[in-house]
Amino acid sequence: MTLNTFVIALEVLGVIAFALSGVIEAARKHFDLVGVVMVSFVTAFGGGTLRDVLLERKPFFWVEQEFWVWALIGLAVALPFFFRARHMELTERAILVPDAIGLGIFTAGGTHIALELGSSPLVSVLMGVITAVVGGVFRDVLVNEVPRAFHDHQPYAVVAFAGGWVVVALDALAVPTSITLLVGSGLIILVRLLAIKFGWELKRWRFL
Amino acid sequence: MTLNTFVIALEVLGVIAFALSGVIEAARKHFDLVGVVMVSFVTAFGGGTLRDVLLERKPFFWVEQEFWVWALIGLAVALPFFFRARHMELTERAILVPDAIGLGIFTAGGTHIALELGSSPLVSVLMGVITAVVGGVFRDVLVNEVPRAFHDHQPYAVVAFAGGWVVVALDALAVPTSITLLVGSGLIILVRLLAIKFGWELKRWRFL
Amino acid sequence: MTLNTFVIALEVLGVIAFALSGVIEAARKHFDLVGVVMVSFVTAFGGGTLRDVLLERKPFFWVEQEFWVWALIGLAVALPFFFRARHMELTERAILVPDAIGLGIFTAGGTHIALELGSSPLVSVLMGVITAVVGGVFRDVLVNEVPRAFHDHQPYAVVAFAGGWVVVALDALAVPTSITLLVGSGLIILVRLLAIKFGWELKRWRFL
Repeated sequence: MTLNTFVIALEVLGVIAFALSGVIEAARKHFDLVGVVMVSFVTAFGGGTLRDVLLERKPFFWVEQEFWVWALIGLAVALPFFFRARHMELTERAILVPDAIGLGIFTAGGTHIALELGSSPLVSVLMGVITAVVGGVFRDVLVNEVPRAFHDHQPYAVVAFAGGWVVVALDALAVPTSITLLVGSGLIILVRLLAIKFGWELKRWRFL
Repeated sequence: MTLNTFVIALEVLGVIAFALSGVIEAARKHFDLVGVVMVSFVTAFGGGTLRDVLLERKPFFWVEQEFWVWALIGLAVALPFFFRARHMELTERAILVPDAIGLGIFTAGGTHIALELGSSPLVSVLMGVITAVVGGVFRDVLVNEVPRAFHDHQPYAVVAFAGGWVVVALDALAVPTSITLLVGSGLIILVRLLAIKFGWELKRWRFL
Repeated sequence: MTLNTFVIALEVLGVIAFALSGVIEAARKHFDLVGVVMVSFVTAFGGGTLRDVLLERKPFFWVEQEFWVWALIGLAVALPFFFRARHMELTERAILVPDAIGLGIFTAGGTHIALELGSSPLVSVLMGVITAVVGGVFRDVLVNEVPRAFHDHQPYAVVAFAGGWVVVALDALAVPTSITLLVGSGLIILVRLLAIKFGWELKRWRFL
């Protein structure tokens, strides 16, 4: 029970982190209220929705958990006031930690859902990566930028990809679901934070 | 019967308006014939198709009404000749009225379809907004612009969102479908036109 | 049997060609390894996946043929080394021939699949065009460019559209599938190569 509550708390943090990154991007581009809500919505739910479309899973993530839709609208409307009141700067740097948490939780959760529906290991891992990464890609496309996940030479999707295989391995070993999710998410979050701290870089393709 | 004919006539106007806005955008970017047809197609049918994918509704909008596909190809091919012949300028301003009509009809129709399939009120309203707004977002992404609906500080999606709740309310009161659709569309169109006429603006998020 | 092997060999060439065009575009934009793999993946499988979503066909293209996913990851990782080793320039020009082959094969295959599922001729042809063209559109959106297929004034989608009708006609005449696919693909490839060789152009819409 306590474990389960912890998992839900993590999930909440993940959704909020992704929604936040959407709010920030949209605000940077001087979007209006509607744009901010829509971009944060797409960032938080885009990946899970594409996964559900590809897996023909129904009902969809955000239909199942309608509470999130209301929470997100409230979040996007309330955030600016909150930040102005606190004289706080909402920089990209400030969301790296919750974003890493979102990456871990969404990858582990997406991979697990696909495995449960009988997908092969590779497809399951790809579904985990899609769940975690595609929301941010949609966000960047909507604000007319090159997707950061493809371009910033930081290990991001590649960490998710590796972590998805950990979930597959633990699942094959019949480890209980909540432990699988915790260990999988935890490892991804840890490696991602180490990558940020030590500035690990992916090489760029130079053949052109 | 007369009412029904009126509803169909409105729907035709809505599809034409959205297709037109696609043609104009594509022509502005100097797209070729194929690009003009494709962008106008995506603009007119993108929102309804995404709604149908999300609701797992089959057959799809434009498969069901194949006539529209042919009409659209004809429209995109014929339009330039028509406009050159008439020495008429096809400005953005010129399509604001039919675009408002499209917004109203597509929102009311999309919301109603989702309600009929048993979706919750909030999801139904979001489906209405998706039906009306997503085509234009796809259009702007394809011509490599920031989506206007998120950025132009005009009440657009927000009018659709409010109007969707009117459809939900009328449906809950067991008002006949055709009246629900007419009143819902009519209100959205009216508010949208007032917003254009009086230059109502949404505040921009200024916290960054 | 020999015929079938030939068809499969063509299909391999088509997937490789589209993946290649994704690799080149991503490398040009200085994407990192993850970006290169993702863009080449989306380019090669995006069209077929959208077709399968629209036709509610399951399992999806790349789930069915998981080998391709592995092949693609290997391809994107190996390619740069290969090209650097050969002192070869990987220009856009260099992929026009395999790309034409991909256009032909994907259009014929997509049209045929839709026909088999009972779609109408027009919808089947559109599905063929979607299969062949959408991957490239996704690629261009991801690298933040205007989709080339809509913009470069070369006959590309329009060749696919015409070729799809050849597949529909041959299918209606009860020609064996392998011959239908070969003739359909072959005609599209031939016309596309002629269009490149002689620099055929589509007129631009000039009314704005």
